[in-house]
Amino acid sequence: MCLFCEVVERKVRAEVVYEDETSMAFLDHRPLFVGHTLLVPKEHHETLADLPPPLVEPLFATAQLMARCVQTAFEAQGTFVAVNNIVSQSVPHLHLHVVPRRRKDGLRGFFWPRMKYESPEEMAETGERLRAALAKWEAG
Amino acid sequence: MCLFCEVVERKVRAEVVYEDETSMAFLDHRPLFVGHTLLVPKEHHETLADLPPPLVEPLFATAQLMARCVQTAFEAQGTFVAVNNIVSQSVPHLHLHVVPRRRKDGLRGFFWPRMKYESPEEMAETGERLRAALAKWEAG
Repeated sequence: MCLFCEVVERKVRAEVVYEDETSMAFLDHRPLFVGHTLLVPKEHHETLADLPPPLVEPLFATAQLMARCVQTAFEAQGTFVAVNNIVSQSVPHLHLHVVPRRRKDGLRGFFWPRMKYESPEEMAETGERLRAALAKWEAG
Repeated sequence: MCLFCEVVERKVRAEVVYEDETSMAFLDHRPLFVGHTLLVPKEHHETLADLPPPLVEPLFATAQLMARCVQTAFEAQGTFVAVNNIVSQSVPHLHLHVVPRRRKDGLRGFFWPRMKYESPEEMAETGERLRAALAKWEAG
């Protein structure tokens, strides 16, 4: 059984902050900052793409609630909400990180360094590649 | 008018890869990696917490689609899906980053360095603080 399924079933201890019918939230035990929270669907699904349609709205409505309350509880100025799918995903059970942020909090962040497309053509080709994948998916 | 509202209204050029009734996706012009995509609600809402309930499911169902197709289009092994709310948010219009990830892609990541709670008591107090904020919110 995966670690987060064990947390959901209360077989492994965690500092649970929220629970409803379909989701649970608990503190990350190795936080980026105090209050860093993980939100999971109770059912085992590995990645964001794997989450069944009926669970999408409940999970992300709860993510909104967590983002609001992590920010107020820890007197933060903002939040960072993120999902690692497969790469950098430490536990193979979908989890949203909700992290309180403050200006100049020392987190240079994931969003660095950035690159540039070499040319407008490279960017157009990149877009075309993604549009083709989307069209293929939607065609089933 | 905000930059992303201008993109939505096609007043500012962007490499649009997807559009439906309520959302639009386009390439980030300063990507972390080729194919780094931004997904926005067409309506102007600043943060995740501000997104009205009827738009939550459509936006995140589309996020699932983008995560799948960014991964396949760019032959990635995973994705990173993230929202910066207020802090590190370059444009004050909610946008989800969908970034293709590969193992050893050189991205040390946002999730470093991590800290530890000093004691079980500190962790319990942190949980209590967040539970209190959630209770307060839910009490209206």
